[in-house]
Formats: sequence, C-alpha cells, structure tokens
Amino acid sequence: MNQGLFISVEGPEGAGKTTIISLLAEKLGSEGIPVMATREPGGIDIAEQIREVILNRANTAMDPRTEALLYAAARRQHLIEKVKPALDEGKIILCDRFIDSSLAYQGYARGLGVDEVFTINQFAIEEMMPQLTFYFDLEPGIGLERISRHNGREVNRLDLEKIEFHQKVREGYLLLAERFPERIMKIDASRPIDEVFEKAENRIRELLVKKP
Amino acid sequence: MNQGLFISVEGPEGAGKTTIISLLAEKLGSEGIPVMATREPGGIDIAEQIREVILNRANTAMDPRTEALLYAAARRQHLIEKVKPALDEGKIILCDRFIDSSLAYQGYARGLGVDEVFTINQFAIEEMMPQLTFYFDLEPGIGLERISRHNGREVNRLDLEKIEFHQKVREGYLLLAERFPERIMKIDASRPIDEVFEKAENRIRELLVKKP
Repeated sequence: MNQGLFISVEGPEGAGKTTIISLLAEKLGSEGIPVMATREPGGIDIAEQIREVILNRANTAMDPRTEALLYAAARRQHLIEKVKPALDEGKIILCDRFIDSSLAYQGYARGLGVDEVFTINQFAIEEMMPQLTFYFDLEPGIGLERISRHNGREVNRLDLEKIEFHQKVREGYLLLAERFPERIMKIDASRPIDEVFEKAENRIRELLVKKP
Repeated sequence: MNQGLFISVEGPEGAGKTTIISLLAEKLGSEGIPVMATREPGGIDIAEQIREVILNRANTAMDPRTEALLYAAARRQHLIEKVKPALDEGKIILCDRFIDSSLAYQGYARGLGVDEVFTINQFAIEEMMPQLTFYFDLEPGIGLERISRHNGREVNRLDLEKIEFHQKVREGYLLLAERFPERIMKIDASRPIDEVFEKAENRIRELLVKKP
C-alpha cells in the first residue's frame, strides 16, 4: 500500500499559511502528485456541528477545558472521515492548522498546560501525527499589520492588546519547534513569499524522495 | 468554607439509580440538609448542545473517540456550571452517572481502554472527583426484565443481543470497584429497594459525621 504523507501547516494569521498551501497544492498537483488541502472542520458534518458549539457567540460561559475537548473531538472526526482515507489512498495532505495550534494557543498561551492539552489530543489522534509540520514564524506586529493592510484598515487599540497574547502564542510555537525538531520545520515568514514557498517545497520533495 | 459532598451513582438501567437518588434527596432534604440531585447535561445550555451532537441520529459516522471526547466536554461544563457552585455552597450532590459510566461503557465495554478514557476525563474533571460513588450491581438479565416490565413489553431478540454488551459493562464496573475500593461502594441492586436505599443512606451519614 502506498501510504500518503501527512503535513500540517502552523503559524499566526497573516503568516501566509493559506497562500503557501494553495501554491504547494497547485504545483504538486500539476505534476500529477495527488494532494489534498484541508483544514478543520473541513466540511465534515459532525466536526462542523462541534465547531458551531465552539463558535456560538451565546456560549460565553464555555470553560477553556470544555473548549479544548471540543477542538480535540472535531479534530478526531475530521481526521477519521477525511484525512485518513486520503492518506490511505496515498495522497499528500496539507492541513491548515492541526495539533500544534491547540498546544500553542490553548496549552501555552491560555495556560491550560502544553502536556495536558497534548494528552487529550493524543487520545484524538492516536498514531496519526503529521510526519512534517511547517511552522511559519512571524513577529506578531508584522502579521497584524499584514492583516490590517489586507482588510484596508488601521491597526487599532484592540489589535495592540491582542499582540501580547500573540506573543505568547509565538513563544508556545517556538518551544514546540525545539521540542519536536524532527517533525517541525520553522520557516521565517517575514521573508518574501516565494522564498517561504521554496523552502517548504524543497522539504516536501526531500520527503517524497525518501518515501518507500 | 463548608465544602459539600460530591456523590455519583452508577450502574445499569433498571438498577434503581433514579429511584434511590429521589429517595435520598427527599429524606436528607426533609432534615434540612442541602442536597442537589443532577445528571449530565443537567440543563446546562452548552452541555445540552454537546449532547445533541452526541445523540443526533443522523451522526452515524461518529467515531467512538469523538464521542468519548464529547462526553468529557459535556461533563466538564456541567461540572463547572452546576456541580462546583453547589459544592462551594456546601451542598450534597447526587449525580446520576459520572466518570465511571465513561470508563465502564466506552473504556471497557467498547474497548477504547479504561486508562485512556480516564486520562481525557481527568483533564475534564481536574481534582473534582466524587468523594463517594455508589455502584448498583445487577445481573444484566434482571435489569432488562425490570425495564421490559416497566415498559409493559416482552424481552425481545434485540434486548438479548444487548445482554452480552451489558455483561461487559458490568465487568468494567466490577474492575473499577476493585481498583477504587475507597471511593466506590458496590451495592447488590437485586435486593429490595428499601435495603439498597438503607445501605446508601448509612454510608452518606457516615461521611457526614466525618465532615470537618
């Protein structure tokens, strides 16, 4: 059986995750390499229902641990219904955010504990960890400015308050990159997009050559 | 602060959980002891929404691990919004099913693994484990017959097929009772209801005497 390659893409908003994933999917696809780009909940009905509970603005009483368990549940279902079948068909999966988002945002930045959030996600994922994770590293101020520019507005007070939180998220990601150096490839996302793309592409090609 | 007493009640359908909880709440309440009877999702809006996802009959594709994570999420929210505030007010909580249901049904009988299901539930519960758990032990055939009689119908083929599963659930509960002898009190639920009630009541009174 030709087992696929499971790749997750991590980093803050404004780091170029969506763009790079599109470019990678397009380029590899044009060479006849089977690729699937996805992100949770990925159109999976049960996962969508769970995300609705998470994102329901009326649910202001939601406890952070409830939220972390719901993210893990939606992750599980998306993995089983969408990612695993595509992997079994030998596809390359490019997944926009996966376990490391929960570890960096909820485990580290929100203070639930990286190891504790890792534990519930291990239950969700079992042995299906990504073989490769791109972490697009970016100073929060830059990401923020990019988003603002994209939305055609000035950086406001609320944005600046959020910077402190995003600085913590970044610290979390950097710790993860140190902890899992084999899996996580950190890429400087302040560099021009074609440079970021090239680094990611080269790494994937290395892995494709190694594949049995 | 007068911290309350957290008691969970476990066992199969037909073992008398609901009846005994009502009787206990009534008797203790009539003596002016503050009691709250509850069960998940317990009218907690977020927990109800999660249960809707679990119980939605259209969700036939739900993976057992997704389900286990959703139960843990609903448990967390019910605990934080309803059980914990009542405990902080010094109440006795009588909770119809709690962590041991997940361990016996999903961990043991459905084969996800007791330790693994315990891990995600520890994340959900933190230090808020019940101080006392009544396990109403009953041979599955008896519980089934009681339910059938209650519903005014004969035991059918489907019921009998389920017996094998409920036998596994019972094995799971019995292992838990061995593993947590300090917390779990096993009571023979084939005995007359007033005898079962008396055993449960006496144990609660012992704990109330010991309370600081």
